Amino acid sequence: MPKISEKGKSMPASPIRKLAPFAEQAKRNGIHIYHLNIGQPDIETPAQFWNTIKDIDRKVLEYSPSNGFEEVRQGYAGFFQTRYGLSQLLPEDILITTGGSEALLFTLFSILDADDEIIIPEPLYANYIGFSKSGNIKVRPIETCIEDGFALPSIDEFEKVINEKTKAILICNPNNPTGYAYRDDELKRLREIVLKHDLFLISDEVYRDFIYGDQKKYTSVLEFPELSQHAILVDSVSKRFSACGARIGMVATKNKSVLETVLKFAQQRLSPPTVEQLGVLGMFDVEENYFTKVNVEYRKRRDVLVEGLNSIPGVFCPVPGGAFYCIVKLPVEDSDHFCQWMLSDFNYNGETVMMAPASGFYSTEGKGKNEVRIAYVLNINDLKKAIKCLEEGLKVYNAR
Amino acid sequence: MPKISEKGKSMPASPIRKLAPFAEQAKRNGIHIYHLNIGQPDIETPAQFWNTIKDIDRKVLEYSPSNGFEEVRQGYAGFFQTRYGLSQLLPEDILITTGGSEALLFTLFSILDADDEIIIPEPLYANYIGFSKSGNIKVRPIETCIEDGFALPSIDEFEKVINEKTKAILICNPNNPTGYAYRDDELKRLREIVLKHDLFLISDEVYRDFIYGDQKKYTSVLEFPELSQHAILVDSVSKRFSACGARIGMVATKNKSVLETVLKFAQQRLSPPTVEQLGVLGMFDVEENYFTKVNVEYRKRRDVLVEGLNSIPGVFCPVPGGAFYCIVKLPVEDSDHFCQWMLSDFNYNGETVMMAPASGFYSTEGKGKNEVRIAYVLNINDLKKAIKCLEEGLKVYNAR
Repeated sequence: MPKISEKGKSMPASPIRKLAPFAEQAKRNGIHIYHLNIGQPDIETPAQFWNTIKDIDRKVLEYSPSNGFEEVRQGYAGFFQTRYGLSQLLPEDILITTGGSEALLFTLFSILDADDEIIIPEPLYANYIGFSKSGNIKVRPIETCIEDGFALPSIDEFEKVINEKTKAILICNPNNPTGYAYRDDELKRLREIVLKHDLFLISDEVYRDFIYGDQKKYTSVLEFPELSQHAILVDSVSKRFSACGARIGMVATKNKSVLETVLKFAQQRLSPPTVEQLGVLGMFDVEENYFTKVNVEYRKRRDVLVEGLNSIPGVFCPVPGGAFYCIVKLPVEDSDHFCQWMLSDFNYNGETVMMAPASGFYSTEGKGKNEVRIAYVLNINDLKKAIKCLEEGLKVYNAR
Repeated sequence: MPKISEKGKSMPASPIRKLAPFAEQAKRNGIHIYHLNIGQPDIETPAQFWNTIKDIDRKVLEYSPSNGFEEVRQGYAGFFQTRYGLSQLLPEDILITTGGSEALLFTLFSILDADDEIIIPEPLYANYIGFSKSGNIKVRPIETCIEDGFALPSIDEFEKVINEKTKAILICNPNNPTGYAYRDDELKRLREIVLKHDLFLISDEVYRDFIYGDQKKYTSVLEFPELSQHAILVDSVSKRFSACGARIGMVATKNKSVLETVLKFAQQRLSPPTVEQLGVLGMFDVEENYFTKVNVEYRKRRDVLVEGLNSIPGVFCPVPGGAFYCIVKLPVEDSDHFCQWMLSDFNYNGETVMMAPASGFYSTEGKGKNEVRIAYVLNINDLKKAIKCLEEGLKVYNAR
């Protein structure tokens, strides 16, 4: 029998989705599951999306251009200008992708060859590991610590791992899975490093609408004029508009060589989805109030979650400044086992909690074993019940 | 300034889309262009698609499962059983992808490592080269000849290039760009080779509804029980339903290791587009009459095109048995130059023709220089005008 590739074998299963079979079995056993494992928000997608696709008047479902419909690129740039005041971003700097995932994959392939190295603060979004493996690219993690809320390490820590193979630094701001929102002085530290060592700086900003601190405005990597040739922005409409199923995102950069190279990869897959692009186009003029309400709601959830978690004996969760995730330290030795046990062996009044074991968010073997990632994408009432359920689960698990 | 990757630099621009800037300029100059360069059919998408998405009653545009909605996998299997009698294909053998493109990329990554080799009859679909380059996979082309209509070469020719790095053979049946439809004895020849050398056989069958010969029924690679662990089917709804913009396709195989590995790549990109999946689900019960009418229409087009082309002095086009492409030999030395010239320097009564230079459909450097790929996706009236335009263009070009 012919064999699968080493690449395929070594590819990790998604820590977010790998426990799904246990969840399905629990559901078949009549147990209700609170899904804290996946960043699928319960927020309604703006009605504009649904109305726009209802109004499509086409006969042939055609390809769009490989870089997306011109109107969508214009709409995207207009939205960034209106909502974020990011006047630097022009339609010609943008390439529409099939989700932020594809934006990342094509960006990595465009700037890193096999055995090249990319520096990523750890814990990191699990799929960064997979995208890198797809291109035989080596991830060099930089450790960040739960004790100081996962703040960016010093320049020294970066310079320890920079070598002639290093091509880029990748950050997610605010961060998935830690929820950490980078301060301006940290972004300036990154600017200094990439200029000194002539590296690309990829910034995954898909959660930029989800900042809860009392701090000043968000700073995008595109706002540093000195980084015009170094900065690559990855964006997606998934979280901003609660439109994860649209699979519409973008790469944006002032570096023409990068954008032209990304276009070659984009041409191979022909085009991003047509109907979903049209639907997204209809959402760009959603009223500001939509974002305000969503932000207030998530901030409440965050506060309820963090307070609830930290009141459980042995549990520690730093206060995340953004996104809708947190990394939580639990009083267990092996969170992979604990998360699976919560699904297969435990219920509290017929309910249980699904979480993502944090080991999959570390590229360093053995790290994160006593941590989980929690996505607070449930309403406050459900969130409280989920926390209670976790508390009871920990009691029973540790008394086994 | 940081540099793009060698992979990115060596990635060829799409031969189908690379002349687009010249076409746009011609349009700005008021010239009408007959698009024979791209397989974008003018056929109407079944109304069921548009009606289904109008009727979607959801509030949150959620991710689907990474392998696609269960209903879509069931619908796909049901469609294959009803329309093709392919009862072997079960929903659990299927993984829904974002177009046939993604199905190919994930399949290649799942079975070939960097420096592994894949055998593909040449001329070949240009993006096979790009997908292979993305994984640093080496394409070993097997020459097929325009003189015998691009029939499959003998086993000897395959065995000349098979070595310990060879992992798979990839065919497109019927073929893009040649239109060649493999005969059963050719498929059996491939069966013999892959069994003898323990290789995977990937069959891209996205054009299976477009067979014009008087020959017996189409044979899918999934119909060989001996190949259950070797055969991987790549499919797409793009051409079948004239729904290129949906970006919905699939990988299907009885080989569980392959499907599980493809799933790991699929999990990284989270999910295929939700709305388009729902729309496609609505099309699976389209009346048989839809396909019959489309088939009759394409067959007429093919006949008009082939007869018209072969009546031009110095032009040769074998009769394609399927798909809606043909590779045409022209009396020019450099079809890249000629195709560009047709857009930038020529018009016939204010009209011109856009074709894809065939060089991009060869992995062997220097081949196909006097050939073009033509997609017959225009109505017969336009097709006749396009042929006339090409004839006049050749006269002027060769009289320069």
